[in-house]
Amino acid sequence: MVMPTGSQSLRQADDAVAGVHRGAAGSFAGVRGAGQRPLVNKSCLAERRLLGRMLEALGNPPLRLVLWDGEEVAGALAATVRVRILDRGALLRLVADPELHFGELYVAGRIEIPGDLAEAIEIIYRALPQQRLPGIREKLVAAFVGAADNAPPKAASNIHHHYDIGNDFYKLWLDERLVYTCAYYADPAASLEAAQLAKLEYVCRKLRLRPGETVVEAGCGWGALALHMARHHGVTVKAYNLSPQQIAYARERADAEGLRQQVDFIEADYREIRGRFDAFVSVGMLEHVGTAGYGELGALIDRCLAADGHGLIHSIGRDYPHGMNPWITRHIFPGACPPALSQMMAVFEPNGFSVLDIENLRLHYARTLEHWQERFERAAGTVTAMFDEAFVRAWRLYLAGSLAAFRSGDMQLFQVCFARSGCNRIPWSRRDLYAAGGDDGIL
Amino acid sequence: MVMPTGSQSLRQADDAVAGVHRGAAGSFAGVRGAGQRPLVNKSCLAERRLLGRMLEALGNPPLRLVLWDGEEVAGALAATVRVRILDRGALLRLVADPELHFGELYVAGRIEIPGDLAEAIEIIYRALPQQRLPGIREKLVAAFVGAADNAPPKAASNIHHHYDIGNDFYKLWLDERLVYTCAYYADPAASLEAAQLAKLEYVCRKLRLRPGETVVEAGCGWGALALHMARHHGVTVKAYNLSPQQIAYARERADAEGLRQQVDFIEADYREIRGRFDAFVSVGMLEHVGTAGYGELGALIDRCLAADGHGLIHSIGRDYPHGMNPWITRHIFPGACPPALSQMMAVFEPNGFSVLDIENLRLHYARTLEHWQERFERAAGTVTAMFDEAFVRAWRLYLAGSLAAFRSGDMQLFQVCFARSGCNRIPWSRRDLYAAGGDDGIL
Repeated sequence: MVMPTGSQSLRQADDAVAGVHRGAAGSFAGVRGAGQRPLVNKSCLAERRLLGRMLEALGNPPLRLVLWDGEEVAGALAATVRVRILDRGALLRLVADPELHFGELYVAGRIEIPGDLAEAIEIIYRALPQQRLPGIREKLVAAFVGAADNAPPKAASNIHHHYDIGNDFYKLWLDERLVYTCAYYADPAASLEAAQLAKLEYVCRKLRLRPGETVVEAGCGWGALALHMARHHGVTVKAYNLSPQQIAYARERADAEGLRQQVDFIEADYREIRGRFDAFVSVGMLEHVGTAGYGELGALIDRCLAADGHGLIHSIGRDYPHGMNPWITRHIFPGACPPALSQMMAVFEPNGFSVLDIENLRLHYARTLEHWQERFERAAGTVTAMFDEAFVRAWRLYLAGSLAAFRSGDMQLFQVCFARSGCNRIPWSRRDLYAAGGDDGIL
Repeated sequence: MVMPTGSQSLRQADDAVAGVHRGAAGSFAGVRGAGQRPLVNKSCLAERRLLGRMLEALGNPPLRLVLWDGEEVAGALAATVRVRILDRGALLRLVADPELHFGELYVAGRIEIPGDLAEAIEIIYRALPQQRLPGIREKLVAAFVGAADNAPPKAASNIHHHYDIGNDFYKLWLDERLVYTCAYYADPAASLEAAQLAKLEYVCRKLRLRPGETVVEAGCGWGALALHMARHHGVTVKAYNLSPQQIAYARERADAEGLRQQVDFIEADYREIRGRFDAFVSVGMLEHVGTAGYGELGALIDRCLAADGHGLIHSIGRDYPHGMNPWITRHIFPGACPPALSQMMAVFEPNGFSVLDIENLRLHYARTLEHWQERFERAAGTVTAMFDEAFVRAWRLYLAGSLAAFRSGDMQLFQVCFARSGCNRIPWSRRDLYAAGGDDGIL
């Protein structure tokens, strides 16, 4: 239940710029901790020039890099946001691989950002030069290979890495239903609780659920959507998840709510789904599938969806194909790979599906993250006691970085509704999604 | 103003199965007319077997092929829809290339369908085996080449072919505003007039137009949308179109409505667009662009859209990439190429755009075509007098075939809303699109 902590990796870390070799994934601080700083001495011109070149390569974000000796290197004249680099080793590591080492150094306390962390990261995201046009290599990779290793054994370890660090931890800062995906703020001023409830209801409306229908959910988290569908829409649900802790919690909830007959929580990979259902839904799983698995996922949906069934996939995405930040994939979400829409279509187009509706809820994820961030900071003391300071810094960075990514447009949130090609039992319009009321006036 | 008629091609046609060589595009009947049937004689077993094999290759649609001598070949036991093949030459031509020659033979009156034409074609569409997974060749073509020749000179001739056959002709069966794209039926029972007006308003709402903004429209038809935006939303519009007849009509309308100061109709290719605008809109043009031109179109939008501008592209599309029916591209819409969403993303993803909203209005296009078909049939006598019988049959087949394509899911209608990547002046939700009222309660 406890993640490897920073102290483990301290023993393996050294100050060399060369790669950090560590066996176990999940150690947040890949470099020597703040307590072991080398002797403070003057930075030299060559070092400041290296930083200057790094800023150039990053698109000259308006940041002010403040060195351990008070010297400064600014990415733009008007730069106001300050990033403090506390030792020479941190500087060298940063210029060697800023995308990876920024995170590791921040977690180790060797880089500090005195102001708003999300704002600083947003500034970096917005400045980054974007390589949007794929080269020949990218096209060949896209056409013939794929990305991310998420074959079943690896998938289980990837999921375990993030989701099995303790329900108690997530209870500290998620909403009461433990919904760990983008909420839907019908009203931007809504509470997190209200917005997560509205999201569950919004997904049900988009699926046009009718009482008595059967639903399969791939990647059900702590079960909030499955339970909501059963309770408020009278359907029966089979819900799959690889995380033992989440499944155990979801079953307890089903028992407590008297929904065990209607909702079957199954601890298994989504590739184990068997049977035929009126609806297929997956919220926040596609990001973990990897583009190489999209054809297989589409074929699975083809096998399990009724002739006039409806489907919805809710996933973090991209405006164009590009990889994840390496710090995130190494320390937070191994195997994560949010797709561009062109990539996502590999689920639908080769498998006989028709895309009916795509909505981009990017700003709703930014709002969700603001709420999570606020709650996380309120619980930071408890989290430190449960884990350690490095863990808190890692999650602080992860939440702020995600917030920055959604604010800056580096990440998107797509809800895709689909049905079988040629199926005419499809909604005439989207007006009913926004009708007042519903079962309990949620939206 | 008059299209080449069937009689021209009769001279060039012969009964051989080998290719029909004709210079001018636009001759509907590529084969000998009904009046010149060869002597009636008995069909032989080999001929009926050829037809049987053709039906097999077409996925055994439940059709009953009735030959000139009363013999029948059925694609399925329960087949009820009858297709009459009136002579041996028609049979041979049909089995040689059913996709191309069905249309030509129907127009020549050598194939007859006694019942509902659209229903018969829908049966064919629904049976067709679908080659959805691209092979290596298709992937390479998709990655490195493109499709359809729509460089400017060819684009002009392609557009002239379809849109300059006479405003009087289109006035016979379009709505009063001459909107020749998919309507939006807020109420499925709405009239064509109401539904086209609702579509114009729906597009404006999706663009979130505000008074005083500037809009550029690529491919403006007879100007209905540009005029509606100016009149009802207080914007100024530059609207581009390659068709001289449409532009002339649109300018007359602008004069008559006193909107000439607000709407500038420009007879030019969309690639001539210059300037910077708060909104980019294109309704029913992308189908004519060809996938090879998508990158260039996206780059153009990038040049002409303001930093916080909004865009909307409305286009016929596909559930997966595949070509147009060859009869349609030869005789009705040269250069037409409706894209799958994966292909359409080539406009947005490499050019710094973020897709906000995609809606599939397939069933609305089917309803629109039902209205057009009904009005066209009512005007068939007038159309015959303006052109000839072959022209009427060609357009009857085109409208019925399109209706069948939208009913069966062979074609889709996508409305794609987008903004620049990272632009945060984007709608919080879609709820306002469905708010009652509006300027004149249109939706």
